[in-house]
Amino acid sequence: MGSSDILSLAKRFNSVLFDASISVVPFMVDGHLVGLIRSRLLPLIRAATSVLCEDGTAVNLDPGLDSFEKRTDAVDALLRKWRREENLSALKGWREERYDVRPWFSSGVLFSMERAAASLFGVLQYGVNLNGFVRDAEKGLCVWIQRRSQQKPTWPGKLDNMVSGGLTSGLGVLEAMHKESWEEAGLPRDLLPSIRSAGSVSFFYESERGLFPNTEFVFDIELPREFVPTPQDGEVEEFHLYSAEELAELVCSEDFKTSSAPITLDFLIRHGVITPENNDDYLQICEMLRVPLQTLFSGGSRFLRSPALQHQ
Amino acid sequence: MGSSDILSLAKRFNSVLFDASISVVPFMVDGHLVGLIRSRLLPLIRAATSVLCEDGTAVNLDPGLDSFEKRTDAVDALLRKWRREENLSALKGWREERYDVRPWFSSGVLFSMERAAASLFGVLQYGVNLNGFVRDAEKGLCVWIQRRSQQKPTWPGKLDNMVSGGLTSGLGVLEAMHKESWEEAGLPRDLLPSIRSAGSVSFFYESERGLFPNTEFVFDIELPREFVPTPQDGEVEEFHLYSAEELAELVCSEDFKTSSAPITLDFLIRHGVITPENNDDYLQICEMLRVPLQTLFSGGSRFLRSPALQHQ
Repeated sequence: MGSSDILSLAKRFNSVLFDASISVVPFMVDGHLVGLIRSRLLPLIRAATSVLCEDGTAVNLDPGLDSFEKRTDAVDALLRKWRREENLSALKGWREERYDVRPWFSSGVLFSMERAAASLFGVLQYGVNLNGFVRDAEKGLCVWIQRRSQQKPTWPGKLDNMVSGGLTSGLGVLEAMHKESWEEAGLPRDLLPSIRSAGSVSFFYESERGLFPNTEFVFDIELPREFVPTPQDGEVEEFHLYSAEELAELVCSEDFKTSSAPITLDFLIRHGVITPENNDDYLQICEMLRVPLQTLFSGGSRFLRSPALQHQ
Repeated sequence: MGSSDILSLAKRFNSVLFDASISVVPFMVDGHLVGLIRSRLLPLIRAATSVLCEDGTAVNLDPGLDSFEKRTDAVDALLRKWRREENLSALKGWREERYDVRPWFSSGVLFSMERAAASLFGVLQYGVNLNGFVRDAEKGLCVWIQRRSQQKPTWPGKLDNMVSGGLTSGLGVLEAMHKESWEEAGLPRDLLPSIRSAGSVSFFYESERGLFPNTEFVFDIELPREFVPTPQDGEVEEFHLYSAEELAELVCSEDFKTSSAPITLDFLIRHGVITPENNDDYLQICEMLRVPLQTLFSGGSRFLRSPALQHQ
């Protein structure tokens, strides 16, 4: 891994910040900025006048939709119509899994929407991630990495962190982490108390499916040498234990899920594998693992300019 | 520690971002943004026309000063004059210690200046920090904290992390960490290999001495239970071992050095003491421990607005 490999990866998973060709419009609900919509979607938005109205500077959810239920139902009907009638790659990953939509994490929930549609509206998405590691007498620090199932709608067959999942409606952060730890890696109940909260990672990614302003809650677990993760839900093909040095190379490869790389890089930085001595771009990389999405979406501050003001 | 205590502390050590009453002007050298100057200093700046020129939107170092040596000598002469003739609280802490001035960390050095003056020009400051911790069978995770000497020019008598120091000219990051570890805590040579790089912390603070856009390289060391840190250079009054829970209270108190609190909070977050479960402001706090100073000073990007553009 050269310094510049990791920095260019970090710019790739923050393409919305660094690629000026990505044209976006704020998405407002009840006066709050809750997302960003790519301009290329505007023709479809303009045809949905009973739910969305576009005024040249922003897309607003119809203010007549003045409750959680009304907003949720109206958006759901629109999305199901788009799913039937339009060819949107985001909606091909439809999961019947609900995501809460709110201006920032600790604010009130305005409505909920199908998880696969979140990227169409560029709403803040939250996830939980568990880095499972082992201290091996010979190989030193080693990390369990999964290969995603070929059947997954997104990133099939790519390498990914041991456990990662979206934060679905109604679950607490630690509760979601426990649930995913069982489903993806078969982590038994007696190991759950060893899970340690270790910070957060945030980045602002674009793919053909839309915009991903993602904030990930990060957890670590030091595993007994004899434990082998075992997928329970068919979403994981296999697990493999890599040395931290191998992983630092692998994370920059095409084989690794781009939007999971920030969590891996954060782990390698926190555990002294990527350091100021071996990477000249260390500080820039650190910053790109925690872009200030909460501050930007909740109104910004000096130098951190709210996306709601981007046309002013 | 209530949630809101930590969030209000985090806004305090990022006052330049959150307090609109702090009026600043960009400081440019050779076309590069290298710092910010408080508007209240402008009368003094305008009197220093042979070195600095102010044009209404920025303060520029005289472009005739076109080499490292010329810039360094001219600024040094000006600062020594100010030290003799003016009553600037920043310069009362004069140390005869050089700081490199550059647009961002991995860029070329434009000149160097006395460390105490860096806050007058709001130039990016870098430091190294070591969290020394112990896993105690009874008290769990414990952390060594120093009380600063009453004789220190800044923050006398306040609580501070085990080892923290500025990154002076000519030293590498790890080299500076090793040097400070000996001087402040008497860390013996055989423990140096146990020091682990663990990330970075950045924040943008203002005090009566000026502006502090600070980026701190963070290191951890797990210490043997029997090791007791011993100051070697008279800058530390004493050391005390606190449980992580005690520290989480203490860090919010008036007794703790405000500009060292971010490093302590980062440690408590990385080690699972402050968590999404026990703090509603978790994500906002995480963000405020790593504000994107490198990106802002190197030109900004979408939504991260370079301070050089603040008057446009």
